[in-house]
Amino acid sequence: MFTLHSTSSKSAARRGALATPHGTLQTPFFMPIATKGAVKTLSSFDVERLGSPILLSNTYHLWLRPGMEVMQAMGGLHRLMEWQGAILTDSGGFQVFSLQGLRKLKPEGVTFQSHIDGAKLELTPEKCMEIQRVIGSDICMVLDVCTELPATPKKLEEALVLTKAWAKRSKDRFLETREGSFNPGAQLFGIVQGGTDPELRRRSAQDLTDIGFDGYAIGGLSVGEPHEEACKTLDAMMDRLPTDRPRYFMGGAQPHEIVAYVQRGVDMFDCVLPTRNARHGLIYRFVHDDLTRPDFYETIHVTNEKWKMSGERLITGTHTAADDELARYTMGYLRHLFSVEEMLGMRLATMINIRFYLELMERVRRGVEEGSM
Amino acid sequence: MFTLHSTSSKSAARRGALATPHGTLQTPFFMPIATKGAVKTLSSFDVERLGSPILLSNTYHLWLRPGMEVMQAMGGLHRLMEWQGAILTDSGGFQVFSLQGLRKLKPEGVTFQSHIDGAKLELTPEKCMEIQRVIGSDICMVLDVCTELPATPKKLEEALVLTKAWAKRSKDRFLETREGSFNPGAQLFGIVQGGTDPELRRRSAQDLTDIGFDGYAIGGLSVGEPHEEACKTLDAMMDRLPTDRPRYFMGGAQPHEIVAYVQRGVDMFDCVLPTRNARHGLIYRFVHDDLTRPDFYETIHVTNEKWKMSGERLITGTHTAADDELARYTMGYLRHLFSVEEMLGMRLATMINIRFYLELMERVRRGVEEGSM
Repeated sequence: MFTLHSTSSKSAARRGALATPHGTLQTPFFMPIATKGAVKTLSSFDVERLGSPILLSNTYHLWLRPGMEVMQAMGGLHRLMEWQGAILTDSGGFQVFSLQGLRKLKPEGVTFQSHIDGAKLELTPEKCMEIQRVIGSDICMVLDVCTELPATPKKLEEALVLTKAWAKRSKDRFLETREGSFNPGAQLFGIVQGGTDPELRRRSAQDLTDIGFDGYAIGGLSVGEPHEEACKTLDAMMDRLPTDRPRYFMGGAQPHEIVAYVQRGVDMFDCVLPTRNARHGLIYRFVHDDLTRPDFYETIHVTNEKWKMSGERLITGTHTAADDELARYTMGYLRHLFSVEEMLGMRLATMINIRFYLELMERVRRGVEEGSM
Repeated sequence: MFTLHSTSSKSAARRGALATPHGTLQTPFFMPIATKGAVKTLSSFDVERLGSPILLSNTYHLWLRPGMEVMQAMGGLHRLMEWQGAILTDSGGFQVFSLQGLRKLKPEGVTFQSHIDGAKLELTPEKCMEIQRVIGSDICMVLDVCTELPATPKKLEEALVLTKAWAKRSKDRFLETREGSFNPGAQLFGIVQGGTDPELRRRSAQDLTDIGFDGYAIGGLSVGEPHEEACKTLDAMMDRLPTDRPRYFMGGAQPHEIVAYVQRGVDMFDCVLPTRNARHGLIYRFVHDDLTRPDFYETIHVTNEKWKMSGERLITGTHTAADDELARYTMGYLRHLFSVEEMLGMRLATMINIRFYLELMERVRRGVEEGSM
């Protein structure tokens, strides 16, 4: 379902297309995060207007609320959200492993307490697939074992063995649950782990390609390690991933990091920063056209005194269907909204930042095509 | 600037039109509240899509933030919010008088402490006009003296004397500040006080009509008294207001109360309930066409279990430009959004309720025209 169109003459950056039951996505692309079935402050109508063809949601969170009984009755997440585009769901592994002290890892799966009501729950690779089938994701993720960094070699090794076994069990159950599901054309991605250890990363990549997936995610990075470490880790392992499958870098990626990862052959991204930062009054703007410059963008604190009387428009141009609305307001108004704590401020900033990330990916795709990055 | 088209054959209800520098408004109408320069969770673009020709904002709140230096530099509230419709501003009297213990009433004006930083401020009738001129409101309100109910006759009497004097000073300063202001075509409304005492109400109405205003507001009601008391108060005084000027009932009014006040000759309304209730998951819906039935509408708690799996659309019909968006989501989704505390829930509910109040007023206008109320 992935077609590789071209590779840059300047780097390992790739241009391709990923076909899903809910549209064909031009790669590299970015996925706005709708953890609980909504991009915070936005509707699916808004995300459509901003031009994203895909959203990312979360298995763990949707499992707890609204729960699978409701999800089944409502016809899956596409219908619940009334979202026509594609959906990728995180397996929830990362969320469960973040519940330090509240969870217990066993070979069968992981038992933990709900962060909402303390209920005892068990997530297994099989269960994880069943949930994602009810959600009706276009791209499902296997349940993996996330390891906090730094970790001892022994701990990383153990996690890797389990990650491999769970990946196999995930795939088996994924295939068994296809028939009669909301979205039979869904794809399943494996998740490469191994911390920042080059050898373990290569082994994990091999483990997963041996099983065979529709795409490969790089998990367990962006967990606090320096950006250079993440780059080195990618450098050590990317050639172990098949070229005819998409690669997805999971988790936080600032704009310049996205460029660096694309140059190493990554095709898919998500990141909570554009939306989370927006809610704290931080917005992104392009400064230079050359994306290989580390300073090609800037971040602006809209709460800063300097914007108090600014008549500067929030955005220029009319690139997306949402731009009529965004171009109408000034930085002075946005600052006022944040200072009086009107939710509209968070909403406008969120739209600005998602628009920025989507435009970044457009520029990235053009850059790869033109061989300028 | 007010044209009375007709009076109902069944009651004192009126159909008319109020011309302002930012559009002609069909009466009776309802004003969504944008206290601090935004209807909570909505942009001016949203309010436009919902079809309201007017917004209500607040002198006191805008005076404190963003402050008049910023307001002047940004070109007034229409430009700050980028709102093309009309704006009415409350004088801030009600807000200042709500600062119990923090404020001191003198004949010159009222001194008080800012609820934000404790700064000592003084609001006089003159200052109040100057602020509203900088805001650039289409309809300015005089500074009045609000009295808490119940109040002694002596207290009401004193407040009335001051209200009269302040109304006169407001008008004088309003006329002096017209030239060179952002909105020279602005109108000034007087505010009738007098609690629920028929005699004082009539006197206050006389005081204000003697001075002469573009419209007359009924203040000091909807402060906790029973609805019947408010009706009786209106019954005692409405014939003292000139028929060729609009009448504005200030503050809270549930849908059935609006109908009752319209039947007593009121032309303009505002109310914080549709938007505040929306943020608590309470939405309004029509049940019967006959507005004179007390049960012509219902309020629904969207958080109720019964909506968990509901595929019912939030609204039916495509009445306004916002309806494409609203009609797409289900009650089940709205309930989910409230249960996981996604701001989108508040936003959708706010749109539903404003849309309800605007449609209510449309039905009211039709009802008056047809003589059915």
